[in-house]
Amino acid sequence: MTDAALTRLRDALGPAISMEPSALESARTDKSGHVSATAPLAVVTARSVEDVQATLRIADEFRMPVVPRGAGTGLAGGAIAEAGEIVLSTLAMNRVLELSPADELAVVEPGILNGDFNDSLREHGLWFAPDPASRAISTIGGNIATNAGGLLCAKYGVTREAILGLKVVLADGRLLELGHRSVKGVSGLDLTALMIGSEGTLGVIVEATLRLRQLPRGTVATIGAYFPDVRSAATASAAITAAGLAPAVMELLDAASLHAIDAYLGLDLSSRGTACLLVQTDGVASAAEADEVLAIIRSLGGEAESSTDAVEGERLLAIRRAFHPALEAQGTVLIEDVAVPRSMLPEMFRRIGAIEEKYGIAIPTVAHAGDGNLHPNFLIEESAPGELPQVPERIWEAAGDLFAAALELGGTLTGEHGVGILKRRWLGKELGQDQLALQREIKRVFDPRGILNPGKVF
Amino acid sequence: MTDAALTRLRDALGPAISMEPSALESARTDKSGHVSATAPLAVVTARSVEDVQATLRIADEFRMPVVPRGAGTGLAGGAIAEAGEIVLSTLAMNRVLELSPADELAVVEPGILNGDFNDSLREHGLWFAPDPASRAISTIGGNIATNAGGLLCAKYGVTREAILGLKVVLADGRLLELGHRSVKGVSGLDLTALMIGSEGTLGVIVEATLRLRQLPRGTVATIGAYFPDVRSAATASAAITAAGLAPAVMELLDAASLHAIDAYLGLDLSSRGTACLLVQTDGVASAAEADEVLAIIRSLGGEAESSTDAVEGERLLAIRRAFHPALEAQGTVLIEDVAVPRSMLPEMFRRIGAIEEKYGIAIPTVAHAGDGNLHPNFLIEESAPGELPQVPERIWEAAGDLFAAALELGGTLTGEHGVGILKRRWLGKELGQDQLALQREIKRVFDPRGILNPGKVF
Repeated sequence: MTDAALTRLRDALGPAISMEPSALESARTDKSGHVSATAPLAVVTARSVEDVQATLRIADEFRMPVVPRGAGTGLAGGAIAEAGEIVLSTLAMNRVLELSPADELAVVEPGILNGDFNDSLREHGLWFAPDPASRAISTIGGNIATNAGGLLCAKYGVTREAILGLKVVLADGRLLELGHRSVKGVSGLDLTALMIGSEGTLGVIVEATLRLRQLPRGTVATIGAYFPDVRSAATASAAITAAGLAPAVMELLDAASLHAIDAYLGLDLSSRGTACLLVQTDGVASAAEADEVLAIIRSLGGEAESSTDAVEGERLLAIRRAFHPALEAQGTVLIEDVAVPRSMLPEMFRRIGAIEEKYGIAIPTVAHAGDGNLHPNFLIEESAPGELPQVPERIWEAAGDLFAAALELGGTLTGEHGVGILKRRWLGKELGQDQLALQREIKRVFDPRGILNPGKVF
Repeated sequence: MTDAALTRLRDALGPAISMEPSALESARTDKSGHVSATAPLAVVTARSVEDVQATLRIADEFRMPVVPRGAGTGLAGGAIAEAGEIVLSTLAMNRVLELSPADELAVVEPGILNGDFNDSLREHGLWFAPDPASRAISTIGGNIATNAGGLLCAKYGVTREAILGLKVVLADGRLLELGHRSVKGVSGLDLTALMIGSEGTLGVIVEATLRLRQLPRGTVATIGAYFPDVRSAATASAAITAAGLAPAVMELLDAASLHAIDAYLGLDLSSRGTACLLVQTDGVASAAEADEVLAIIRSLGGEAESSTDAVEGERLLAIRRAFHPALEAQGTVLIEDVAVPRSMLPEMFRRIGAIEEKYGIAIPTVAHAGDGNLHPNFLIEESAPGELPQVPERIWEAAGDLFAAALELGGTLTGEHGVGILKRRWLGKELGQDQLALQREIKRVFDPRGILNPGKVF
């Protein structure tokens, strides 16, 4: 049966299908560090909508599971494949099909990298706002599949707000066109929005119509502030929002994060405070807004510097960018992704402190403070050589406490990374059993044979 | 059977259920002017979530159709009821349950009027951005059910962008909590977004968590511009967007609209041009942006005046606000709602001109020019006294041509009013049969017995 399916796939796809061990191996993992127990059956590198359709038609006929995959930069195991599965990569479908400055839209294939696409827009004075930290390496298709967030969301929205329409191949190979080219449109149920963040469980995105923005005018002002404790930093970030200032970026780093960055970059940031707040204002009023931000920070016990110089601004933001490399230098890292209402940030940091104490571990945490999205990080001891990295059950217990705290404060398990396989076991706790059952039924409408990304999310 | 159901409803709901002829009559129509052929069976005025649940539990058991209804200000017949149907009004559920300035959110019941709610926010320096022209008379529940647009959407987004979470009662009476209190959240399928714009076909919204904004800083600048023809006005609006200016408001009125307003207000606007563009800029850079807008308008043949005086600004916008009353003074009006990509506005006006010629009728048209959403209006001759207003088949044919033109230009049947019953027959043309079938299946997942707003949308 499997052989018959593979023969059909080879006949239909030719060199687009590969069973090379290296290709199969690389699809066992993503940037979460999680590795599946076994290698998948084959990798299809689609180069056209027809390739995607052919793959799904055959997979549907033979009831073979298909794992859609972009650049594999996910942090929740949503594109990880295992034995018996076909990996359907759209990474090679990476063309810009249309750019319309007049309509502030572009039509792109899913495999284009967010950063590459944005580079190509700059000469037109345009910009695609979704900005996950992975933008240099993640695809727009992947950004859509996870409804990716990033640093700019409080001001510029999440991926969902930047998508006008999608072309999607259903599990049975049919092609659907969802959404519009117009800014507004309310004809029927909003299946575009339903598809965004569905993590490859409802269909395969093969084309996207993106809403672009004009590049903000004016200069960017960057502020680096240090506080005696993380709660004052969180309080300052809440006060900045409450003052009606809308910073483009507002990132918070705690003591353990600063220590890791100090060790990695050879700096001594920790001597300036035990928490750091990085703020960027943009637009024509950026300098005046930065002054107001500075005043708030200082009134709440922070020590801060501000700059409208691009190089100096980049130097300040580089501190934040060094965070993940700094942690990875210490071992394997499990990056969590809870979000809480902004006013709950100080309390969430208190809860994280309590979990650190209970389990006797450090949980270095950074937060997109403007939107209440925290990334607490668990360091996992290195596996023995040749062994797969495993998250110890004790770490999962600590993560479970973290999720429970976020839910209790009115938040969510995952602000921007998605559920994938890593958060599946907690999903019912957030959604409730009635909603989870309803979501499963919707999944069945799109994919009655359950071949699309099985075992993910649900 | 019906009697048994009514007895059960009366037992459960007491005085909340009414069969008064006046209550039944008013639920036969909405602001579209369309009137159903017969009166519904009863009207339930829910005062609590429990009232909504009780009504749906009984309706589901007896398979009785239920029409959810707010203030009845819809323009597509989405809340119109007829024989055998129970009208479930959430208009009396109109409390603000929570207001959190720190989290820039509010939790409200669905029946609160958009305008009333915004009035209550002003003292906190906050604002709920969705601004349908009906804001003074339409409910937030209705705004959500139709994903209402309005004048400010190009800059501030549609209703979907302002909703964090919903409580929804399903067709069988179960209560679901969807979404989050946090700005970000990607746990599972985005059922909040799916519910927004579903026009009462998937569930009854009983509570909403709204994302609020800080009131924009600075003064508002208002520009009134007149052009020799509607295509230059449309070209100017496209040029304003392309220049990277993001006006809060950009409204376009054509010659027939200006004539109607002149007649209604006793003005002579038509002597200044055959098309009018009204623009408002806001925020700290509003005056500088207004100057740029003026320069663009003048370079494209427009004659314009600008003001940062609130009274003068209000006087200019009053021209736009007089449009619907001015038309209604001439007879019954069918308000259409197509949207096209912004660059297609001039072409769409050309197509409307061709339809006017073909059918020998005037189609006064206003447009939210910033987002390409046009409201072409068909005047319908008054019915004989005692007769229901009817849209003649010839007008529907002209409307059909209009829809076909919008779709051909990459647009949609409905930018912000919804499908209801009035656009149902064209929906398949926009969505395609595969998508329409999929939408119907999703509807069945939520409402397997088909009791929720039957005959609407699908």
